Amino acid sequence: MIMPRYRITVEYDGTPFVGWQVQSNGPSVAGAIAAALERLTGKQIAVHGAGRTDAGVHAYAQVAHFDLAASWDCFRLREGLNACVRPNPIAILAVDETSDEFHARYSARARHYVYRILNRRAPLALEANRAWHVGIPLDHGAMAEAAAHLIGRHDFTTFRSVECQSSSPVKTLDALSVQRLGDLIEIRATARSFLHNQVRSMAGSLKLVGEGKWRPLDLKNALAARDRAACGPVAPPHGLYLLRVDYDLAK
Amino acid sequence: MIMPRYRITVEYDGTPFVGWQVQSNGPSVAGAIAAALERLTGKQIAVHGAGRTDAGVHAYAQVAHFDLAASWDCFRLREGLNACVRPNPIAILAVDETSDEFHARYSARARHYVYRILNRRAPLALEANRAWHVGIPLDHGAMAEAAAHLIGRHDFTTFRSVECQSSSPVKTLDALSVQRLGDLIEIRATARSFLHNQVRSMAGSLKLVGEGKWRPLDLKNALAARDRAACGPVAPPHGLYLLRVDYDLAK
Repeated sequence: MIMPRYRITVEYDGTPFVGWQVQSNGPSVAGAIAAALERLTGKQIAVHGAGRTDAGVHAYAQVAHFDLAASWDCFRLREGLNACVRPNPIAILAVDETSDEFHARYSARARHYVYRILNRRAPLALEANRAWHVGIPLDHGAMAEAAAHLIGRHDFTTFRSVECQSSSPVKTLDALSVQRLGDLIEIRATARSFLHNQVRSMAGSLKLVGEGKWRPLDLKNALAARDRAACGPVAPPHGLYLLRVDYDLAK
Repeated sequence: MIMPRYRITVEYDGTPFVGWQVQSNGPSVAGAIAAALERLTGKQIAVHGAGRTDAGVHAYAQVAHFDLAASWDCFRLREGLNACVRPNPIAILAVDETSDEFHARYSARARHYVYRILNRRAPLALEANRAWHVGIPLDHGAMAEAAAHLIGRHDFTTFRSVECQSSSPVKTLDALSVQRLGDLIEIRATARSFLHNQVRSMAGSLKLVGEGKWRPLDLKNALAARDRAACGPVAPPHGLYLLRVDYDLAK
């Protein structure tokens, strides 16, 4: 039997979830989407995401796929999913039929994340749970200089959670930039794939550079140490957003 | 006795409040700040705001003033206020000592508001309670053309709440612009002062123009009618933000 495969693009506020992945300890984004699919189709359906975002991490455009027993009109499927996923803070932005060669996780060519720091003395009100509040003035120029040392193909053991299940700590970081817009500092990271907690580990260490506790070269040395103990404190999840996932056009 | 006067700049998420103004029916922003001041000083202190935002309306930079019996260091006062106002989603961004001629409401030279519409089919997740969700595609060009008809000195009775306490419906609207950035449509409005519900009334009528239910000229005619019944449905509060308040430098 041919099962049509659907690709969805998903925005979510990660605050109330234990993460993207279905877990036994609380509500997950994938679980909420699977529950909505079950309400629509009467069947239990596995939902595969491109990025396994952690508890509290947000997404502007996560990508996922699933197979249905019958063919659905994409517009109706999106409307139905959005109606059934309520009141979770999850929005299905797009639904497209795709080939069975497409896999949200394994076909991804690049993942883009942004880590947002609000760098001001006053606490956050409108941006609570939407950015990391850092009260000490950060030198974004030093952070940008330090970030450049991490770009390229490296052993990222220093910036890897001990729980990481990746077969290798060697990854290619295509881009890591630091920009300031008023009080907002944005760290943007792009790679084909990341290690578990890699972006938050890099953001936490970059914050030490911004505070002046580390020189930019200290970040290079931390990378070279290939030692988890050389990493700065991991930045909190609520500043992190999965921004976009790229695929080859053919798929 | 000379009572030193302080001017504060305040950001807040309006979602949990009945509005800026102290009211008997629930928590207000001014009430939360007054309660924090009472915790700090042991005294009941009136807090006067520049703009009386309604329930659900947000502020990036509301301005308010109050008088204290004793002189405070501005940095310590800001830190103390932010500590005592917790866990309300209110942040005191700045505290400055000012002259007793300064009045947050009456000295204001211009108020700037932005009304945010997220114009997409999918519901809101990250922007829930932060923008008006309009699923029908809006023609922002037509909205901008219509908005231009409202700029200037006019009798704004059409766009005035029946509860408005202003002595006159004649106001000068200095700017009203409509711009699109992807799915986001921003309506920006500037005036020395606004009538009650004026920005939301204009935004609701502009949405009718964007949908094609009104032509741009219909908005001009609605203004000319000077009749509340000629107004479109008032836009919801959670899309509105008090952006900034301007004062003459001397004060």
